Formats: sequence, C-alpha cells, structure tokens
Amino acid sequence: MSDAVIHDVLSGRYAVGDTVTVKGWVRTKRDSKAGISFVAVHDGSCFDAVQAVVPAELPNYESEVKRLTTACSVVVSGTIARSEGQGQQFEIQASSVTVIGWVENPDTYPMAPKRHSMEYLREFAHLRPRTNIHGAVTRVRNCLAQAVHRFFHQRGFYWISTPIITGSDTEGAGEMFRVSTLDLENLPRTEAGKVDYSKDFFDRETFLTVSGQLNVETYCCALSKVYTFGPTFRAENSNTSRHLAEFWMIEPEVAFAELADVAQLAEDMLKYVFKAVLEERADDMAFFAERVDKDAVNRLQKMVDSSFVRMDYTDAIEILQNCGKTFNYPVEWGIDLQSEHERYLAEEHVGAPIILQNYPKDIKAFYMRLNEDGKTVAAMDILAPGIGEIIGGSQREERLDKLDERLAAMGLNKDDYSWYRDLRRYGTVPHSGFGLGFERLVSYVTGMGNVRDVIPFPRTPGNADF
Amino acid sequence: MSDAVIHDVLSGRYAVGDTVTVKGWVRTKRDSKAGISFVAVHDGSCFDAVQAVVPAELPNYESEVKRLTTACSVVVSGTIARSEGQGQQFEIQASSVTVIGWVENPDTYPMAPKRHSMEYLREFAHLRPRTNIHGAVTRVRNCLAQAVHRFFHQRGFYWISTPIITGSDTEGAGEMFRVSTLDLENLPRTEAGKVDYSKDFFDRETFLTVSGQLNVETYCCALSKVYTFGPTFRAENSNTSRHLAEFWMIEPEVAFAELADVAQLAEDMLKYVFKAVLEERADDMAFFAERVDKDAVNRLQKMVDSSFVRMDYTDAIEILQNCGKTFNYPVEWGIDLQSEHERYLAEEHVGAPIILQNYPKDIKAFYMRLNEDGKTVAAMDILAPGIGEIIGGSQREERLDKLDERLAAMGLNKDDYSWYRDLRRYGTVPHSGFGLGFERLVSYVTGMGNVRDVIPFPRTPGNADF
Repeated sequence: MSDAVIHDVLSGRYAVGDTVTVKGWVRTKRDSKAGISFVAVHDGSCFDAVQAVVPAELPNYESEVKRLTTACSVVVSGTIARSEGQGQQFEIQASSVTVIGWVENPDTYPMAPKRHSMEYLREFAHLRPRTNIHGAVTRVRNCLAQAVHRFFHQRGFYWISTPIITGSDTEGAGEMFRVSTLDLENLPRTEAGKVDYSKDFFDRETFLTVSGQLNVETYCCALSKVYTFGPTFRAENSNTSRHLAEFWMIEPEVAFAELADVAQLAEDMLKYVFKAVLEERADDMAFFAERVDKDAVNRLQKMVDSSFVRMDYTDAIEILQNCGKTFNYPVEWGIDLQSEHERYLAEEHVGAPIILQNYPKDIKAFYMRLNEDGKTVAAMDILAPGIGEIIGGSQREERLDKLDERLAAMGLNKDDYSWYRDLRRYGTVPHSGFGLGFERLVSYVTGMGNVRDVIPFPRTPGNADF
Repeated sequence: MSDAVIHDVLSGRYAVGDTVTVKGWVRTKRDSKAGISFVAVHDGSCFDAVQAVVPAELPNYESEVKRLTTACSVVVSGTIARSEGQGQQFEIQASSVTVIGWVENPDTYPMAPKRHSMEYLREFAHLRPRTNIHGAVTRVRNCLAQAVHRFFHQRGFYWISTPIITGSDTEGAGEMFRVSTLDLENLPRTEAGKVDYSKDFFDRETFLTVSGQLNVETYCCALSKVYTFGPTFRAENSNTSRHLAEFWMIEPEVAFAELADVAQLAEDMLKYVFKAVLEERADDMAFFAERVDKDAVNRLQKMVDSSFVRMDYTDAIEILQNCGKTFNYPVEWGIDLQSEHERYLAEEHVGAPIILQNYPKDIKAFYMRLNEDGKTVAAMDILAPGIGEIIGGSQREERLDKLDERLAAMGLNKDDYSWYRDLRRYGTVPHSGFGLGFERLVSYVTGMGNVRDVIPFPRTPGNADF
C-alpha cells in the first residue's frame, strides 16, 4: 500500500491489482442504480481525475459516500483495475473511502460544477484554482516558468534578482507606484512646506520597478550572460485584456552580443519553452484546444517548426504601403506600428513569426544603439501570428559619447544615469538583451484571452483583493 | 576558430592546438622582461581567469597591450596550450588581442585590484559584480536558485506567483510598506478629513506583501503541492547583518501533509541544494573556504551527511535547564528561544542540525495547528550549527472552529480572513508548509556574514540606490 499521486495511477505506473491510496478532492460523483458510486477524484497532479468505483458494501456508503459533493476532500484506498469506461485506462476499485472535509452548504458552494464566466471566477481567486481551467493554467504556467529557468541555466546564464523597490525614476514617475512608510495623515514637511522624503524609510522617494534591465546590465558587464525573472509594475490606468499593474518579466542580457545574437536567442527560447509545454503538458493543452482556443496546440507546433523571418522596419513600411490594403492608421516611415500593421505582416504577408528590426530612433528608448545610418536604432520586436508583439529587445548603446547625445536629445539629465554611464566608462562592451512579459506568454500559449486569468491574483485598477 | 567561454577552455573542452577566441575583461596583466605579456582574462563563466600569453610581435603590442589595465574589455584569439605555470592546465597563446573598451582613468577606477571593504563595495553595487568575491556570490546564488526550482519541479510541485501588492494587512501594518499613486502634495480627503484611499489606484489601502503563505494555501488546497519563490518586504528599522527590507522567500505548501512530512521535505531540500553547490560550484566554494570562512565547504558537506535531529520544544527546555550552563536569557517553558539557546542545542548538545517542534501556542502565529495537549502548536524551526534558525514552518489549522478560536484569542477579526476561512469551509484538508529566506541561505552557504552582500542591490533603512 502506498500513497499515490493520481498522475501516476492514470499513467500506468502501478500494475493492475496493486493496492494504492489517493488523496484529493471530489470532482463529480454519480450513483448507479446497481448500488455502486463512481467518484472522480483529482489532486492537481494532472488534468484528469481518477475514477473510484465505490461498492455499497462499504460501511460508510449510505452515511457518507452517497452524500459526497464536488470539492469534498477524501482519502480513497483500493486496487488498480482496468477501466471499462471511456477515456481512461485505469480506475480504482475502492476498499475504503474516508471523508476528510465536507463542503458547507453544497448548494451555495461558489465553484459548483457548472460553467462560470471568467469575470465570476476572478471574484473567487482563492477558489478558482479548483476549476479545470485554472488548474490547467497553473500547470502550464509552471511548466513555462521551469522551462525558462532551465533554458537559461543550460546556456550558462545566471539568474539575477534586480531590485523591486528603486530610487531610480528612469522611465517617468507617472507610471510608477510610490513605496513609502510615511504616515499619510501626518506627513513630515520641509521648511518650504513640501513633503519631506528624507524622513521616509529610504531617506528619499522610492518606487516599484518598471523593468530590471538597466540594473541587470551591471551584472551583464561583469558576468557576460545573465537574466532576470521577477515582478515588475505599471501604474497605468489601463483596463485591457493585455495589461496588469503587477506582472512578471523575463529579461536576458548578453555581453559581446549584437542584435542578431539576441534575436536568435529569443527564437531559441520561445521554441524551447513551447516544446516543453507540448511535451510535458499535453493533457492541459488538449483541454485548451478543446474548450478555449481550437488552434492552441497547432499554433505552438507551428511556431516550433517555423523559421522566424527577419525583416527591417524600413522594408516593412514599404510592404505595408504597397500591399493594397487600407489601414485605420496610415503608414509612413517613422510611425510606431499598430496592431493592425503587425498582424498583417505576421499573419498575411509572411504567415510566420517575424523579427522586425532597426526602428526609427525617435520612437525608441534612449539606451538603444544608434545604427550607422544615424536614423535608426538596433531594436527588435518579435511579432507572432495571432497575438502581435510578444518580445521587445535591442542592442544597448555602449559608446559613452553616443549615449550622452541620446540622453540630451531626449531631455534626460545624465547625472541621473551616472552608474549606468559608468558601465561605458570602464571596459565597455557591446551588449544586447530583450524583455518578455510572462503573462502574455502564458496567455499566448493557453489561448486565454485575458492576462487576468493567467496570474493567480491579478492586480488592475481597483483590484487588489486577497 | 570558435567563440569560447573561459570555463570550457579551462576545463579542457578544447584540445591543445585548437584555435579559439575568448571575450571578457582583464583581471590582471604582467609584462615580462623577455617582451611577453601575461594577461588574465575572465568572462564570469567560472571563478578563474584564463591566462593569455601575448608576444611582443603583435602589431598593437606597444600601443595597446602594454597599456591594458584591470577591467579593460578585450577579444583574444589564439591557440590552446598547456600551461607551465601553477594552477591552471591550459592557457592561450595569443595571435591577436583586440581592445574593445578602455578604462577611463585607471588610477581612480573604483574596483582597482586590491582588497576593498564590504562596506566600500556596497557603495558601488553596479561595479562590485566585477570583483572575485561578488562574482562567486552571484554564481552560488544562481546555483542555489536553480537547485530550488529543480528540487520542487522534480517532486511535482508547481511554482505559484503570489501577489506582491496586497490589500490584506494580515500581519500588522507597522512593518509594511505602503503602495500608492496618490499625490502626496495634494491628498484627497473624505468628508471626515481623513485620507481618502478610495481614490488610490486600487480603491483602497495597499501594501507590499510580507509573505505569500496565506495566498499560496489557496493553491495548495486545489493542486496539492505548490511553492512560492518571490520577493517579500519588511519595513522594519533593523540594521543588522541578517535583515533586509526586500528579500526573496521560498515557501512550499503541501496538502495532506502533517508537520513531520514537511520537516522531512525541508531536510531533503536543504541537502539537495547543498549538494548541488558542492558539485556545481566547487571553484567558488574553494574561494569562500580560502578567503571568507574556512569552514564553508566542510559545513555543507556535514549537513549533507548528517541526520537532522527531531526534538520537542518541551524537551529542549528541559535540556537547557539541566545543562549546567548560564544563559543571559533565563530558560523556562513558554519563552521564545534566543540565539544563545539555539546555538547551544545545535552546536554543543547535538552537534548537528535540529528540527525543533511543537512550540507553545502563545508565541506562534494564529494559523498554526493546535496540538492535542491544547498548549502547543505543530510548528517547527530548523536550527543549523553556526547560524541558528534557517527555516520556520508549521502544520496549518485546518479545523474551522479551532481557527476561529485562535483568531478570537489573538484579537483578530475573522471577517478580515473570510477567504482564508473559506478553505476550511469547502473540502478542508490537513496541510503544512515552511518558509526559507533565500538570502539567509546564500549567506549560510557562502559564509558571507552580511545578507547585504548576497543580494545584488540591497535595500535597508536609508539605502535604495540604483
């Protein structure tokens, strides 16, 4: 007799006739007229529940087994048998069923087994992992995260935990959350009557980070291959299916790498993690393909098999201008591409993921490396059919004089960037990196249309429950 | 000719005579009278630098090679040769040395190759990863993080990203950081004149999380085996070598597990990650043993080889009372053990790690499971020789009536815990977990005495640079 996880029972790790004990929750129960109950028990170890066949002879059959409802917790012991039903190969002929926890008021249990809207489930973020769909999301999300770490670790990258609380306000305070221990009912004031942040916990104003990139560049310029995987924050008042106030980002940074090198790295990484999901979570992906997005499995397989197409921004503009299609946003060199443009390129023109490169400098950040033409920077976006931009990256400006010119042109004060500039003063190297929003990746893989449904406790304007 | 990482060159992946190119930074340079320079180049891939032997015949020998200083970035091509010097087996006979980045003003370069104090290096957190010691810390930290993820993944745990921003103030607001987008110079007020948090980003007061435990229990009660690995925050004004305002925590949670099960899990996890470091980072650990703490390697090996001793709190009190030793803090049943007590138990009485269990309920949190005796709870601390408490955990109270009694006894409002109580109303199960502060783990492993030196950008009272 051994404690078994349900995944092992269903995958045939035990022989028919073996005695096992499983522990989990009732998904459904059906009583037959012949005096047998069929109790589907799940424990989160895989998508499926195992069927326990419970005979009326059990001493607690009438008093307990027949009263079981969805979400009751049980311990079931019995022998492995071949299942005659559809779907699964194995089931358990129960010799005992112990009820561990009942469901108070089954009629009002919020996760009763029926279709719930995604909005409804968000109200019950503490119970929704019990549903089939959120169980599947959790396993796929975990699979992707593990694959990301494994991918970088195998290639000699070091995971760097860049700071969450930061005194640097390098991308515009309007979008940042303030972090403070000041008593707001009783704020300290300077002589001039302003809030006195020198009395705050860190002796200054501090915020939640919007990106670990600038910080992780310091480690890249010492250890060559590094990446972040941590939470980042945007205080944007965006109520869209693609925005969260708190989300996880992956940001690799590679020394001596040019844009083409990290474009290749990004392609390799995406293919690696998609393959991991297809291989390790076939059960959950089959569910997504059946119930959420019929293209879910296909799309990943296509990405794995395809060659990502490299294209210059300037060529893309020309293609868009000459394609004969009318867009809502007119196309001319210098514009930031809109979703309609990106989708046309990836879905209609190429029919494969595109790595779009060398954007006009005026629509990109100060740290991106100026190209020879003096007009474009070595930036890239990866556009995937069906979702649009999934990765953004660039080669970083490693030449101090050029960096200073860009800071000045953008009206930024170079003294605010002294430590970042130091990297260019002491043994500067070409280096490049990219950023990938983890929730967008999970959303893309599962076909779940809203990023709020692929993170356990979503934070958006007005929402910080739990 | 291929680009090589220095680890591969030094570990003999290339044959003598192979042509390679390495890219990195100068650690040291020595010019011989015979007209040859020895340039040690590192790239972060391992502790050691590779020695490039540079002949005077190179066209840029006088103009550039002789001017190289620590931290200049270079690309060196040449052939692999057996090294006749001490230490390393292989070196590179350089056929070309290209200087990529010079060091502005080598005389004032902050990381010049000499001994710097840890305090000094903290001032230059953007440059200190270039030092031997912080390079080693970074690699060991990464090795530990990867091993933690691998350990849990192999055992069927799912990584859960619990929220960083939380509306729950469950452990006392005094120690939490506020998160807000309110304009502090112009605070909105309610009619009663109080700050109107309904106007804040999340329509309420929000804080940075102090622990993901309560949140991750919701996933445990759906998917059985889960863990967190993310940042947590304490706004304590503690200036000690063991406290950070921002640090990373690992918190596994297991359904149907009793205290003894997670005690075993914790022991297995520690041994697994220590073994990983000993095997994968022998180079860095040798450095720590030589320069930081001569017991560094030994201590880990001992932990791996030892059996952790289980001991009841009540027995520990008796041992301390009868040991004949005088402590600064007198010992009686009911006290919170002090460091001197923990060290006596682990270092002198047992001489091995101890898992101390079943503490008085009055010194422990409300969610810990009440034991049969009515006086103690199923809590554990793991005490390691040389550091004291490294892990704290407990079985959680899964019985709603008992949980409510504890909430009431501690003066907590049960309405504030409605979602947590729901887990006990709907299919409750025994479950247990523990928490491990990641920086304390890295500090323990490396022998680095201060947690500020094992996280890239430490946040402490008054410090939030970069």
